[in-house]
Amino acid sequence: MTLDEIFKEIQKSESIVILTHESPDGDAVGSSLAMKLALESLGKKPDVIIPEYAEIFKFLPGTKDIKESSDVKNYDLAISLDCATLKRLMGSEYFENAKRTIVIDHHGSNNMFGDFNYVNPVSPACCEILAGIFDYYNINITKEIGSCLLTGIITDTGGFKYPATTAETFEFTAELLRKGVNVSDIYRRVLQTVSRAHFELAKKVMDRMEILENGKVTFSYIDKNDEQEVGAKPGDHEGLVELGRDIDGVEVSIFIRQKEDGSDDYKVSLRSTEYVNVSDVCLMFGGGGHPRAAGALVSGTIEEVKKKLLKEIKKVL
Amino acid sequence: MTLDEIFKEIQKSESIVILTHESPDGDAVGSSLAMKLALESLGKKPDVIIPEYAEIFKFLPGTKDIKESSDVKNYDLAISLDCATLKRLMGSEYFENAKRTIVIDHHGSNNMFGDFNYVNPVSPACCEILAGIFDYYNINITKEIGSCLLTGIITDTGGFKYPATTAETFEFTAELLRKGVNVSDIYRRVLQTVSRAHFELAKKVMDRMEILENGKVTFSYIDKNDEQEVGAKPGDHEGLVELGRDIDGVEVSIFIRQKEDGSDDYKVSLRSTEYVNVSDVCLMFGGGGHPRAAGALVSGTIEEVKKKLLKEIKKVL
Repeated sequence: MTLDEIFKEIQKSESIVILTHESPDGDAVGSSLAMKLALESLGKKPDVIIPEYAEIFKFLPGTKDIKESSDVKNYDLAISLDCATLKRLMGSEYFENAKRTIVIDHHGSNNMFGDFNYVNPVSPACCEILAGIFDYYNINITKEIGSCLLTGIITDTGGFKYPATTAETFEFTAELLRKGVNVSDIYRRVLQTVSRAHFELAKKVMDRMEILENGKVTFSYIDKNDEQEVGAKPGDHEGLVELGRDIDGVEVSIFIRQKEDGSDDYKVSLRSTEYVNVSDVCLMFGGGGHPRAAGALVSGTIEEVKKKLLKEIKKVL
Repeated sequence: MTLDEIFKEIQKSESIVILTHESPDGDAVGSSLAMKLALESLGKKPDVIIPEYAEIFKFLPGTKDIKESSDVKNYDLAISLDCATLKRLMGSEYFENAKRTIVIDHHGSNNMFGDFNYVNPVSPACCEILAGIFDYYNINITKEIGSCLLTGIITDTGGFKYPATTAETFEFTAELLRKGVNVSDIYRRVLQTVSRAHFELAKKVMDRMEILENGKVTFSYIDKNDEQEVGAKPGDHEGLVELGRDIDGVEVSIFIRQKEDGSDDYKVSLRSTEYVNVSDVCLMFGGGGHPRAAGALVSGTIEEVKKKLLKEIKKVL
């Protein structure tokens, strides 16, 4: 599908809904709000449905209009942003019941679940794809739209540090800075500042950190009780997996977190530094992601989950 | 002094020495090596004297030529980079005995101690000043020079996150990326990766963290014993002060570190988030730095040093 065809779909649609993936990060929330503002500049009145997202994104323009659900059953058009599969899409019922659907994403594991799919796995962030699309449509990237886009770019490039970060990413950021987007303020809000609860969780994760396989693998965890004890809110566990990855010599960091219901199901986060494709490892457990950052859901006790993961990781270490 | 005059000084000098500040960070080492490579491209053979610097910078081109001292007593020209005062300059005797001296720096507290001083306090890094100077002199910024310059820029902008980061910083980084400079690799080496010793020190700093003044100030410390216990090397304490600053709501982070000789002298690092000018606070104790990052040396026990600092900080909180 070409960008011109996508534009036609948008133009002819009366009711539009914007959706994104569960556990929404900065690229999910940022791309949704940027798309909302861009469509509004075309005279549309899209709904953004995100049932739950982290406090830190509340400073973004348009968050007050975000809905938890909608009375509209059959939207003319549903747009899925930054989401690889229908299973991970929040409000997937609106997508399934929409007359036409568009998927815009940058995950290599995207299974093209829309009527029209615009997927660029080389792009470091869905927000960077949107920047290109808005430019193509001659939509003015205002300071507000720019703030949303930058939020996604900063989140998904780890603050301009991941290898996928392109020269265009830096040039686009320079452009946003010149437009008055407060880059350092957004960086501080979405990536640097941590909650007290996060700080307390980080202490636990560091105290429990096991350094394995001659220093090449780290393992740590938090359970439901830990999160209750520190009063953790959604998003407070974000970034904890990086505490292991950043130690000199570590290739794979394993961080597991007990599921909210307190069951023996663990949300696994893997990060790698140079060569292990953790997306492939997570695929073995029905998960996925990017080569250097991926996730899955694995059943068992903490020790069992650790063993299962280590077994697969050792094969590619 | 104009850039043309500086260029004439360089052109007519036979022997040149490049010096930088004690406890050299990425901007100190990066600017020294970038200057060395640039002068070599003009046919000069400068000495770089840095008696001690962190392991993480050893990947930079030219480190094997760095000298701890020199037999040359009276250099034709001494260039001080990234250093605010003669007192902080390593190898200051070479500077004092040189026939002519040039100071290039970006610290607002620079006291213009050279014969010629080129100081731009608005620039986020000394390396960014050098980029402009090299461009003016038509010196080709090779991949090697670019890697050195980027090291300083990444260090002193905190990885593109501090408010002083300019649109030019992002554009220059885009340019370097296009020249083949491995931005993400350099970022990982100089800012993201931490040693095992740093990780162990961070655990101690976090366990001891006091959150004071209604959450606006944090205090933590390490002493000589801590560093011995974890086998800390020079540079392993870098960044520990940020653990407090990054907690939501914190305006000033205080981190103190006992002097190497185990005496009751503490090296104080202060960081602020939005409004407290910590450079002013450190000036009260004979130190200095930037508005959001500064340091000083304060005598007393841990509790005494903490009290002295808190007293001054409370006045501006």
